[in-house]
Amino acid sequence: MYNLAIYTFIAIATSISFLFLSSPPKSYYHSLFISDSLSDNSSIANNLYSLTKRPHVAGSKANAEAATYVLSILSSCNIKSHVTSYDVALTYPVSRSLILTPSSSEKPIKFGLIQEIYENDPYADVANEVLPTFHAYARSGTATGPVVYANYGRVEDYATLFEMGVNVSNTVVLARYGKIYRGDIVHNAYAAGAIGVLIFTDKKDYGGVKWFPDDKWMPPSGVQVGSVYDGTGDPTTPGWPSTGECERLTNEEVDDSGNVPLIPSLPISSADGDAIIRTIGGKEANVDWQGGKESPIYRVGPGPAIANLSYEGQQVISTIQNVIGVIEGEEEPDRFVILGNHRDAWTFGAVDPNSGTAALLEIAQRLEKLQKKGWRPRRTIVLCNWDAEEYGLIGSTEWVEENRELLASRVIAYLNVDCAVQAGHFRASATPQLDELIIQVAQQVQDPDNSSQTIYQSWLGSGNDTTVQVRMLGRLGGAGSDYAAFVQHIGIPALDLSFGNGYPVYHSMYDDFVWMKKFGDPMFHRHVAVASVWGLLALRLADDEVLPFNYLTYAYELQKSAEQLEAEISVNGIKLVPLYASIEKLRKAAIKIEDDIKALKAKRSWESVRELNDRLIMTERAFTDKDGLSSRTWYKHLIYAPARQDDYGSNSFPGVSDAIEKAKSLKSTDSWRSVQHEVWRVARAITQASLVLSGRLP
Amino acid sequence: MYNLAIYTFIAIATSISFLFLSSPPKSYYHSLFISDSLSDNSSIANNLYSLTKRPHVAGSKANAEAATYVLSILSSCNIKSHVTSYDVALTYPVSRSLILTPSSSEKPIKFGLIQEIYENDPYADVANEVLPTFHAYARSGTATGPVVYANYGRVEDYATLFEMGVNVSNTVVLARYGKIYRGDIVHNAYAAGAIGVLIFTDKKDYGGVKWFPDDKWMPPSGVQVGSVYDGTGDPTTPGWPSTGECERLTNEEVDDSGNVPLIPSLPISSADGDAIIRTIGGKEANVDWQGGKESPIYRVGPGPAIANLSYEGQQVISTIQNVIGVIEGEEEPDRFVILGNHRDAWTFGAVDPNSGTAALLEIAQRLEKLQKKGWRPRRTIVLCNWDAEEYGLIGSTEWVEENRELLASRVIAYLNVDCAVQAGHFRASATPQLDELIIQVAQQVQDPDNSSQTIYQSWLGSGNDTTVQVRMLGRLGGAGSDYAAFVQHIGIPALDLSFGNGYPVYHSMYDDFVWMKKFGDPMFHRHVAVASVWGLLALRLADDEVLPFNYLTYAYELQKSAEQLEAEISVNGIKLVPLYASIEKLRKAAIKIEDDIKALKAKRSWESVRELNDRLIMTERAFTDKDGLSSRTWYKHLIYAPARQDDYGSNSFPGVSDAIEKAKSLKSTDSWRSVQHEVWRVARAITQASLVLSGRLP
Repeated sequence: MYNLAIYTFIAIATSISFLFLSSPPKSYYHSLFISDSLSDNSSIANNLYSLTKRPHVAGSKANAEAATYVLSILSSCNIKSHVTSYDVALTYPVSRSLILTPSSSEKPIKFGLIQEIYENDPYADVANEVLPTFHAYARSGTATGPVVYANYGRVEDYATLFEMGVNVSNTVVLARYGKIYRGDIVHNAYAAGAIGVLIFTDKKDYGGVKWFPDDKWMPPSGVQVGSVYDGTGDPTTPGWPSTGECERLTNEEVDDSGNVPLIPSLPISSADGDAIIRTIGGKEANVDWQGGKESPIYRVGPGPAIANLSYEGQQVISTIQNVIGVIEGEEEPDRFVILGNHRDAWTFGAVDPNSGTAALLEIAQRLEKLQKKGWRPRRTIVLCNWDAEEYGLIGSTEWVEENRELLASRVIAYLNVDCAVQAGHFRASATPQLDELIIQVAQQVQDPDNSSQTIYQSWLGSGNDTTVQVRMLGRLGGAGSDYAAFVQHIGIPALDLSFGNGYPVYHSMYDDFVWMKKFGDPMFHRHVAVASVWGLLALRLADDEVLPFNYLTYAYELQKSAEQLEAEISVNGIKLVPLYASIEKLRKAAIKIEDDIKALKAKRSWESVRELNDRLIMTERAFTDKDGLSSRTWYKHLIYAPARQDDYGSNSFPGVSDAIEKAKSLKSTDSWRSVQHEVWRVARAITQASLVLSGRLP
Repeated sequence: MYNLAIYTFIAIATSISFLFLSSPPKSYYHSLFISDSLSDNSSIANNLYSLTKRPHVAGSKANAEAATYVLSILSSCNIKSHVTSYDVALTYPVSRSLILTPSSSEKPIKFGLIQEIYENDPYADVANEVLPTFHAYARSGTATGPVVYANYGRVEDYATLFEMGVNVSNTVVLARYGKIYRGDIVHNAYAAGAIGVLIFTDKKDYGGVKWFPDDKWMPPSGVQVGSVYDGTGDPTTPGWPSTGECERLTNEEVDDSGNVPLIPSLPISSADGDAIIRTIGGKEANVDWQGGKESPIYRVGPGPAIANLSYEGQQVISTIQNVIGVIEGEEEPDRFVILGNHRDAWTFGAVDPNSGTAALLEIAQRLEKLQKKGWRPRRTIVLCNWDAEEYGLIGSTEWVEENRELLASRVIAYLNVDCAVQAGHFRASATPQLDELIIQVAQQVQDPDNSSQTIYQSWLGSGNDTTVQVRMLGRLGGAGSDYAAFVQHIGIPALDLSFGNGYPVYHSMYDDFVWMKKFGDPMFHRHVAVASVWGLLALRLADDEVLPFNYLTYAYELQKSAEQLEAEISVNGIKLVPLYASIEKLRKAAIKIEDDIKALKAKRSWESVRELNDRLIMTERAFTDKDGLSSRTWYKHLIYAPARQDDYGSNSFPGVSDAIEKAKSLKSTDSWRSVQHEVWRVARAITQASLVLSGRLP
């Protein structure tokens, strides 16, 4: 009797205290976060303007200063912030030359390799700080040979050349940008026997009748620079952080890794590409290999033009700076929701990546306002501003490698934004348990280009067919941005957001504030929308008592991928039964945890919520396999990894894809047995995931 | 003002309710657990008697019945229990023969290869159920050749033979049991060029003037059987569970794994060994190679005796049964403390392993009594009774492989007991963060052989020098029992307990209840003591609010190991600076968490305790490296793994040891560079552990 009386007494006391003490529910703050009252497009514009005043490539003084700027904004928002530095191997151009001899009877032409400053360019006085056009990690050396035109430089393009009887050996390949990762363009050329590579921007893909500053298109002299490194993170410290006096591979070991090109390459402008095309003879290329209307006829060569390309680069161990800001969770400080964006840019970086940086700072500023109104996150929110992404996702990868075990045990999700605004359409990619959350959030945020609808509505297009939801979402198998180490190395649920998919002045000198203001986002409303979506996703993940993860979607996605696989391999006697069985287990576990969540509502304790959430988090980890993908073991995730022949491309079941590729080439029984082995491995990983999700010992 | 008033009100109410509602503290139940009132030596004796009525090798009907027995006892203790089965590849003998031709002029002798039944043996009627003496996973085949005596069959013994000018090629090696794992005896003989191996029990090591049943010593006809498999878990499913329709290696792939012998072998008795020794000529063996006083002079051969050994085994996919009992934690059901012991025995298994099984069942019975008195564990306690340990730690390994991801995220510690009672002295081995807890518990439990002192006091011996504490504890690098998969594959803190270290009738037909009753533990007080220590360790780990882990001891142990390493490799220019630096980081993190624990006392919440405990648990995981040891990648732990040339032996920094072994043999710059690489890897793992322990992003 005493006991009961006292319980009642406490219960009443607790209820009363709630009335007096309780602050508004989290959802109140979440609505506030995306409201007009907290958004600030002028502040975003100011931040972007400040960040992009000068070129700020990784390792430069200007980029260190940009880090200081980001640090100061975060600190001014009352966010505990610090810089984490790494000493990493970056490369810079020392000398470049390109000489074309159209034919034995003509005089050689020497190209200038310079991006032109336009009249009244406000950045003319700092244009000399832009690095000469080059490929990071390109092989130093000289190559002289007849030119072959290889379209987009894909494996299938070389198959076409082979069928046309074109011998690529000892030639200089001219390929155009646009379909695959530039590092793979060089790699594929090397594999085909080429001794040097020129990659040009085809006007057909990036140009227009008018160009920047008069239109959004790439000027004829504009050059897309970028990395040709095929790995992830500092090439000299594969799998471990570049901290202090650390172990480093020798240059020979880096060469042996297969991740750096073994022949020289140069990026060139559409004007220079056009000039070279005109000197290539041989057979006429296929229709889909041709340029735009005003272009000459593209022929495949080889020759008669002889190209002499020369590149000398310098490798420097440079200090890079990640800026890390932490808002400690009130109830679960040991659970992290991480937002990340990189800061380093090839040139001014107004789109890539500082539109994202400006959105990140906008989030910091809005969160400060929320904090002033009494909001505290349940879990810890970490804001990361990475360095050296452009060189090979280096800042984020070194950080993940350094903190691997801690992150693996604590991180809820990683939310990436690289180029926040490139163009008008909202895009999202994610590990599939986040699909539903992304849709919910997109339904809450207004379309910046049409105030009468939400982002979700514009995303859906005119129709309203909810079955296409999943189709609109991309996946994270490619290695296109800083989510790679999080997802592919340690198995953390992640997503990547942007407006637009590509923009014409990408990685050129013209990616500056003027371009953004004129063509990308004149009113900065798209930036505001990215900040709203990105921040609201973080708030939901940081504050929702039960994590908004849905693994039914994951099971559905896996089922789809398995069915796609089936068509490809069934003829070779490969059995997918174990794969389907494992997906079914995951589906059942996904249904079970939904039931567990419902059951929780009756009897809810901190402990039981935590138990459930831990299952939801750790399930993704189980998709990673310690042994990783065979012959590229850094990639531990067996569901999502880059395609072997296109680092930007994405594979489901990459281990299976690798094995199929090999089996199709070797055609041996053993090699098809390896495919079956890889199917088993994926099935086992999915089974592990289903056990973690169910939380029960079988 | 309102707020303060209400807080005070709740605080008072809570205090009052505590007075009325609180049950006794956990420590009350812990003391009760080890008190005489709960202990029951007669019940232990009964359980042991029941378990050992018949031989019960893995895969046999008798062992399935023993599983039912264990299940019934656990269930009768109100413990939710079930059987988890796996289909694994076991081998059984089909035919064996051994013929010795002492010299060309003498008649061949055919050995019986039979362990004799003594007069009035109560188990005579089931002795025919004991498998014929054999080596599990031995190669089937025949070998005929001159005999060479190779002492204990270690690598250094072959070096001695080489120095003596003895050519081992195409000989049958006769080696004696006792210093290294029998699988490595066969492996080393094969590496030296032998074509067959006989392993005998030397009277000097296992025999006495009298023998069983008159004394504890091995009878002359007694044979130590056992496995010669060098891997862990089902050989056909390396790294994954043998569940249902799973992927399996072919026989050829198993052969290629390097874990199964490629030449036949047989275990033989001391009588047979003696008979063969007498027929070996050649040089006299060194003094330390000789037998006991009454033995003939041991000579090394080769010949003149010719041995003809023949073995045919059969591989069968057999179903094995792990019995799993779960007592769900009241506050942290998702944190597991696991107790494990195996059940399968080569013969009757009174010592190995059912003394441990009886202790496990005693714990179950005491825990039921505690539950009746109101105790509930804070965390989940899991009682495991493994199968097929004798074949290669198979039952535990398959279970760990099946539940790898779930276990990695939930297990606090794994507590192993194999042979609970072999002889009189208490022994413990552990991962070092458990040292202090073991000492505390040993200080609470009475020495079964001397009621005037604790186990700890007898352990210390006559002295009372606390500095020797750590010296008394072994480590878990060897693969001697079921802790291997927990520690070495997934990085779970673990310990292993026993009374005694070896016993004469090990793995022979004479390891039965009579032996235990007469020589091992006549009053079963040692069994009671094991149950007390083992159970109290589990209770502390399951109930202590803050986990009783101390990582300072770990740092101390690592420092010692590093210093030992230094002596060995400093001459080769290997730098241990990174290793020492990482150990210093771990030491600092260990001090910091002690401070954090103290700080907790002021402001203690469920959440903050959990955060701390998670750091303590997950630190051990960080010692594992995804890539594992090179060329034996199943072993992921970089601090503890078996020695390469003795599966029972233990290495600190096994990756470094492997590399040193290779470098000493290859003597190349590159191979010494690999040693440095392995030092870096260990240093990085220790650094990861220190970050997890500190719980902070750097």
